[in-house]
Amino acid sequence: MSFPSELSVGVIGGTGPQGRGLAARWANAGISVAIGSRDAERAAKVAAELGETVSGDTNGAVAAAAGLVVVSVPWTGHADTVRALAPHVAGKIVVDCVNPLGFDKRGPYPLRVDEGSAAEQAQALLPDATVVAAFHHVSAVLLADPEVESFELDVLVLGEVREAVGTVIDLVDAIPGMRGVYAGRLRNAGQVEALTANLIAINRRYKAHSGLRITDV
Amino acid sequence: MSFPSELSVGVIGGTGPQGRGLAARWANAGISVAIGSRDAERAAKVAAELGETVSGDTNGAVAAAAGLVVVSVPWTGHADTVRALAPHVAGKIVVDCVNPLGFDKRGPYPLRVDEGSAAEQAQALLPDATVVAAFHHVSAVLLADPEVESFELDVLVLGEVREAVGTVIDLVDAIPGMRGVYAGRLRNAGQVEALTANLIAINRRYKAHSGLRITDV
Repeated sequence: MSFPSELSVGVIGGTGPQGRGLAARWANAGISVAIGSRDAERAAKVAAELGETVSGDTNGAVAAAAGLVVVSVPWTGHADTVRALAPHVAGKIVVDCVNPLGFDKRGPYPLRVDEGSAAEQAQALLPDATVVAAFHHVSAVLLADPEVESFELDVLVLGEVREAVGTVIDLVDAIPGMRGVYAGRLRNAGQVEALTANLIAINRRYKAHSGLRITDV
Repeated sequence: MSFPSELSVGVIGGTGPQGRGLAARWANAGISVAIGSRDAERAAKVAAELGETVSGDTNGAVAAAAGLVVVSVPWTGHADTVRALAPHVAGKIVVDCVNPLGFDKRGPYPLRVDEGSAAEQAQALLPDATVVAAFHHVSAVLLADPEVESFELDVLVLGEVREAVGTVIDLVDAIPGMRGVYAGRLRNAGQVEALTANLIAINRRYKAHSGLRITDV
């Protein structure tokens, strides 16, 4: 399947490194993309850098206009940002990409989340939306590198609703080299988010931009 | 580096599907292996099935005689089994392979562990040993299948002591096709253990025996 052309994507936190990078890749794939920020001017400025077809506005305006909403914000602002989306996302798919990690001098480590994961927190705050978790392990550095034309990465996609998971898998597959793989229900999202700490540890030890591939699938 | 020939491996819980499978593969690789069980007779019987060079005894006797100890037991018995090893493992590497998972009609899910992970629980109970976490995602079905001669799997290896991590990476690399990859400190073991739930979800959806590969390493 390919991602439905009538579905526009709104990236909340789209001026951050991951959101911006994903938006650019989706725009390249011909998907209609808008990026949101708390600051509409900043969103418009970054959108203009990403390409003529990308628009920018406040997070709320972008969520209201989009057919599918992607949340790519730092963990610190996650609950507040997601809560503010509630009036705009009823009946829509919300893709949560957020990794609740702490950092100290020994490196990254997972933070305990009362709801179990960022994705489950989002679902609790957005009961009228369908939350799907994905894109946790995408390297912002590689996304931003124009010389990287294809990625060596399987994106784990988690959710409760099979059709919504399928749509997000199509959104993954729109980026060259990436492959979406269903990896369980939302209650199994916490460890996928936290695994980003391990990939960072691997990157530091091996001086790499590591990614995952799932074998035998 | 290759695994040091003078180091014998004792597999605690070696009559279970994962322990038995790992023991057989290590024996094939020329490593000196003993398997432990609560029941010495049962251990001896399974050891005889695995090959002439494999011996079996009680968990305590096997841990006392081994140079490196591998813990492969169900999560339910983990704390008690590990606590009983304390007199036998001072100064040794203890490899913890245990996944704290629950199962219900919706499938597997991670259990919260007070210490953060099975590996950290083992380290807390065995302060005189060096605990390394590894082998969480190895399929017992593939291990048991004599037609599987090589595995398509990167084994994530976690620990605090670089030399011990290196020795366990060599123990991984002794099994054809497996590759050991350092993936962080013990405080990042919980999500690696829990990720087994995702691999089980993947196996069910795609009718596969899935494994991980780490790209760019």
